[in-house]
Parts: sequence; structure tokens; C-alpha cells
Amino acid sequence: MASGIITLTTDFGLGDHYAGVMKGVIAGIHPAANIIDITHEVGCYSVAKAAFVVAQLHAFYPPETVHVVVVDPGVGGSRRPLLVEAAGQFFVAPDNGVLSQVYERAQHQVRHIDTEQWALKPASNTFHGRDIFAPVAAWLAAGTPPAEFGPLIDKYVRLDRTTPVFVEPGRWRGKVLNIDRFGNIVTSFPAELLDESPADFRLLAGELEVLETASTYAKAPPGLPFVIAGSGGFLELSINQDSAAGAAGVNIGDSVELVFSQPNS
Amino acid sequence: MASGIITLTTDFGLGDHYAGVMKGVIAGIHPAANIIDITHEVGCYSVAKAAFVVAQLHAFYPPETVHVVVVDPGVGGSRRPLLVEAAGQFFVAPDNGVLSQVYERAQHQVRHIDTEQWALKPASNTFHGRDIFAPVAAWLAAGTPPAEFGPLIDKYVRLDRTTPVFVEPGRWRGKVLNIDRFGNIVTSFPAELLDESPADFRLLAGELEVLETASTYAKAPPGLPFVIAGSGGFLELSINQDSAAGAAGVNIGDSVELVFSQPNS
Amino acid sequence: MASGIITLTTDFGLGDHYAGVMKGVIAGIHPAANIIDITHEVGCYSVAKAAFVVAQLHAFYPPETVHVVVVDPGVGGSRRPLLVEAAGQFFVAPDNGVLSQVYERAQHQVRHIDTEQWALKPASNTFHGRDIFAPVAAWLAAGTPPAEFGPLIDKYVRLDRTTPVFVEPGRWRGKVLNIDRFGNIVTSFPAELLDESPADFRLLAGELEVLETASTYAKAPPGLPFVIAGSGGFLELSINQDSAAGAAGVNIGDSVELVFSQPNS
Repeated sequence: MASGIITLTTDFGLGDHYAGVMKGVIAGIHPAANIIDITHEVGCYSVAKAAFVVAQLHAFYPPETVHVVVVDPGVGGSRRPLLVEAAGQFFVAPDNGVLSQVYERAQHQVRHIDTEQWALKPASNTFHGRDIFAPVAAWLAAGTPPAEFGPLIDKYVRLDRTTPVFVEPGRWRGKVLNIDRFGNIVTSFPAELLDESPADFRLLAGELEVLETASTYAKAPPGLPFVIAGSGGFLELSINQDSAAGAAGVNIGDSVELVFSQPNS
Repeated sequence: MASGIITLTTDFGLGDHYAGVMKGVIAGIHPAANIIDITHEVGCYSVAKAAFVVAQLHAFYPPETVHVVVVDPGVGGSRRPLLVEAAGQFFVAPDNGVLSQVYERAQHQVRHIDTEQWALKPASNTFHGRDIFAPVAAWLAAGTPPAEFGPLIDKYVRLDRTTPVFVEPGRWRGKVLNIDRFGNIVTSFPAELLDESPADFRLLAGELEVLETASTYAKAPPGLPFVIAGSGGFLELSINQDSAAGAAGVNIGDSVELVFSQPNS
Repeated sequence: MASGIITLTTDFGLGDHYAGVMKGVIAGIHPAANIIDITHEVGCYSVAKAAFVVAQLHAFYPPETVHVVVVDPGVGGSRRPLLVEAAGQFFVAPDNGVLSQVYERAQHQVRHIDTEQWALKPASNTFHGRDIFAPVAAWLAAGTPPAEFGPLIDKYVRLDRTTPVFVEPGRWRGKVLNIDRFGNIVTSFPAELLDESPADFRLLAGELEVLETASTYAKAPPGLPFVIAGSGGFLELSINQDSAAGAAGVNIGDSVELVFSQPNS
């Protein structure tokens, strides 16, 4: 039984009509759909940002929710539109790697959407959010079986994995998965590393090398960078009421390192 | 049978309570209303931007959708509140020209809303979004016949037409209808001009004079401005993953020209 | 009979997944909830801004609406999560003063939410919007009696009152409650002071000393600061189509003064 929920994650911004027009297309096909904005403020063309955001959703949404992701610099070209089933939910997105972190963390099946059958007619070459992704999401939320949208495929675009890699004894390399509004640096190191106390590592991110840890933001002294177990299950680097990303000078996708004081870790 | 959808397009921004209070008024009158945000990020007082945005909606929304538009620098003064029926949908807005592009493209009937009867009591002089437009939209979406809101009028504010005008043989003048988040310049020239291939014209916009065309963003070489058939049915001037508006130095409302190589075009 | 409406006011911004994840938690618990965004653009950690915004809502929302407020720099620390009943509606928020203006203006009962019973398991130390406030709001909107969420308490954080204080004969001191997107300065002086005509006072705010009044924005000459009866019931200082806050150089929380020409006022 579908939840009827369709979430939207795009880089269309909130100043234009693009997101609003997608909602109209959805409402026209499936009037009972519950349309939920996740964000339309993904940086223009930032597939890496959207890849993080959309992978935070499925753990907290009801089964069969449909997540639409439109960050799509290749719109109208040869990149394919996809319908992905993962973690009991659906993702409708261009095949440009924006679902990579969903693929990393959940069993998934990937279908190539048959645009001949499912796109609005006429379809534009510049706005597939309206012409392909919105109608597919609406029909899917209305109960159309996934298999009707197109065949399963086994080759699709995956960005580099974000899981930490071994560099040398006692040293692992991870990535910056997200910089949030508060300047928190979300890394790809698992938060469980903080279960041991005291932590026996230091985190290197850009200009910062951080030993200190804190269990809550408010416990950290002002101005002092610290490592914290973030809400998404990853280690984060933060400064209480200030921007750790600003202090470190890092961006999404940059490398970060974890160095253990016991090299046999 | 009304769709129950009420869309909101305002310049209230997203940092204050204004849009949220309008939603409360609507929900209080018509609890089953499906309230959809189009944008609250129209530039302050930018009637020209809102005029474009709201004219993109009706083609993609279900019949009898109610579109509320509040960009209203004259609030509380002599400008009238309007209820417009066009293209099978409703528009509730101040009489300041913000519906001009709806008028240009669709048959329409315009009513002067009787505020004595329909405004919240007491009504403010500074927030008619809350006190007049929201309640009218809610009662309308709930099924109140349009005629009950006030009499038809035949004089109302229309901004200059946006349709291209003839300058001299081979030369037409149009307008910049929109600059979107990506820096695309949406002109008022019809996209059908690109059906012929190769295009036999060049587009002049501010600093740019553009001969090149592309069928998709991704096909254009980086940095090169090109003309493309936009999703709204107009010619657009774009640069792949860069801002054409920044390169051209144009704003909404500026003139643009189309010059045909065959002057008898 | 609950309205089923849950409003959201946070400082999470619109670029990340935080607000979207809260909506997923709510929809999972109470699928029929009507989730309404007020704003997610409160300045990071700005309890003072949120305190104003959330106090503008209850007069315009249906009975039993649930208002969730998450501006929470002390998240994970000793500050308590609260459920407040006021004006026939519910407020779910951290105990950091963000509900102070609700307390000032309405009878209220305050409960300390029992997180052992109501938080998601496991709960994070950094995202109580998701782990505590969203689930409590969802269960509450679904009909759970308030008393089940925790005991009444009579000590809780209140910021300094905003009501004007007497300074000396003919002189009162108030506060800047809000600076809105248009640069209007919302003061804590009651709008009723303008009922007398002509006004017999001048308003001092930062660099500005203002005698002029206007009944609508449009009636004021360009560039001239004026006092107007604002839509929230307070005196506001405005400039027609320009920023009064910029001209005055004031911020939320700053003092403003009203000086009467008849000192016995």
C-alpha cells in the first residue's frame, strides 16, 4: 500500500516556477499525492550535495515513498532517466550518480524509464523534472507497478564510493559528504568510532587537525573545533555556534583523514 | 468540481511569518485545501518577475486551481483586489499588472473583489495577503461561485505587452521575460523559430550577440552562449553551466532583438 | 477535534535534509497530518527571531494546531523539551525562551516532555527536531492527550518581556521585535497609539527619529521614514520600497523609544 508521499529534491531554487510546475503536474495526475519539499536549494548542478541529501531520507520515510531528485546538468542529452527501488522506497532521478549513496547503503534495483511511454507530450529538452520525473513519480505513487516503467538495467553511473579507504597502518582516508547550513563538516567516517572513550584518533580536515571530542554541541568551549557523532551516523567536525567548514576551508568531496594514535587500529 | 488546490506566489520571502500566516487563514476557512508553494522569493516589489512566474502555472495545474499572487507595493491604497478567471483556473491578485501575461495568453474575466464582504475583520492596511487574498482564495477553493466575490470590470491594469514588435525588415524587438536561477535569459520570442534548422537569425541581448543554437544544454561547448528552445515555449539564451544573464548584463524587462539574415523574414 | 495541522519553524535552512527528514518522521507516525512550513530560514541560533515569528501564528490557525519550533543551540544538553498549551493550540519547542512571546500574550500551560517515552530510539544528541520534536508533534496531532507527554512545570525559560517600559514622563522604551524582508522595523509599541490623529509622539530607532505617520505604505513619499500601524498589532517604522532597518541601523532586540510631545501622556 503506497504512502502517497512524493518528496522533491532539486537545484531549481525557490525563486522561479520550476518546482511549482512539477507540483502541478503531479497533482494533475494523482490529486491525492502528498507532495513534500525536501530542498530546492541544492547548489546549481551539485550532484555531490544532492547525493548526500537524498540518501538521508529513506530511513525516516514510510514504505513506498517516492523520492524525486532533479539535479540534472545533462538534461536532454544521452543520460537516462531512472526508477530505482531501494530500502522499500522509490527514487526517480537522472542517471548521473546522484543516487550513488543510496546504492552504497541499500539493496537496489535500477530501471531505465521508457520515456516514449511515460513523458508528457511534447516533452522539452530542458525541463525533464516537469516532463518525465514528475509524471513518473505521480503514476508510481498512484500505484502503477514499477516494472511498467521500463526494464531493469545493471549498468548505471556510480560516483566514487564514500566509504573510508586504508592508507597505511593507523591512517584512513574518507570524504566530506556534506557541509550543512551551520558549517558542520559531515565526514564519511562512521560515528561508532566515538563509542570508545576517549577517542584514540585525530581527524584531519583541511586546515584543521582535531583531537577533541564532544557529546553535544553545547558542551564544547566556544571557538574550539571538535569531533562529534552526527545524526546521520557519521563523524562530524563542528564548532559550537561557528562554522567548522569555514575554519577548515573544505568543501563537499574533499578528502579527510583519520589518524589513530595506536597504529595497529 | 474544484481541485482544492491553492498555489501561493509572493515576495514575502521565507524568513518571516507572512506566508505561514496566509496558510493558517486558508486552513481555517477550508481545512481540506491543498496549499502549494510556488515561490515566496520573488524579489521585493518585483511585479515583472511575478507576472512571468504566475503565467507559467495554468498549463500544468488541474482545472479550477486557485492561484494567489501577492506582490503588492500598493497594498492598502486605491489599487483594487481582483479575482480573474482564465484558462479554466482562478487568479487572486492585486490590480497592479501582475496578471498581465495571463491576460496576454488566455481568455479572461476580471472581477473587482468586494472587500467589505470578504475581508477578515478588522483588515490591516499592510497585509492584504492575509486579510483579503487568502480568505477569498479559501472560499473560492471551497466552492463559492466566482460571481459572489464582486462585479465584472473591463478596465484593469495591464503592463506593456511582451509579444515581439516589428522594428524594420528583418529585425524584431522582444523582452527579457525572466532570468532564472541558472542565469538563463528567457526572451519573449517564440521557441518555434528554432524549428527551422539551421536558424537563420542572431539574438542580441545586452553585451551578447548570439548565432549559435543548441538542442540541449549539454551539447553546447563550455563558455559559449547559445540559443535554445526553452521549456516555457520561448527562445532562451544560455551558457552551459554558467550564467548567460551575467555575461549579457541584462535584467527582466530589458529589450532584446532578433535579426534575421534574410531581411524578408 | 484536532485540526491535524503541524507547522514547522526552524533554523535548519532549506539547503539540507533536516526539515525534510522531520517531515518523514511525522508522516510515518501520522500519515494524515497536514504539514505546513512556516519558515526554515530563521537565522542560525536566532532564538529572538523565532520567538517573534511563532507568536504571530496562533491568532490565525485553527484550534489544536501543533506548532513545532526548532531553534536549538543547546540541543543534547540540559535544556528541556517542552509541550506548551496556549490559546487553544500546541507548541513543541526547546526550553530556551523561544516561546517567550507566546507566554507574554496568552494563558499557557507548560509540560516537560518525557523523552524516555517519546523520543525515537536511538535518539541523537544533535538533531532533536527529528528525534523528539517531530514524533511528539505527530502523536499530539494524531490525538494523544497532552498530559501523556509529561508533567506540568512552573519554571521555564522566559526572555525579557517585550512590553514597553516607562522611562520618565513622556518617554517609553520598547524593543525591536522583528526586521522583516522589506526592512520594516516592527517595534513592541502597540499599534493603537496611532488611533489618535495626528499622532503626538516621535519614534527613536537607532539613527532615525520619526514624526511622520502614514496609513499605507504607498501614501508615504519615497525615502521618507514613517510610522505605521503594522499588521501584527505593533507600531512599525517603514520606508516606502526601501529598508527602514538599513537606514536606522537597528537589529532585533535593540531598544527603541517613544517620546510624547505632551509629557503627561
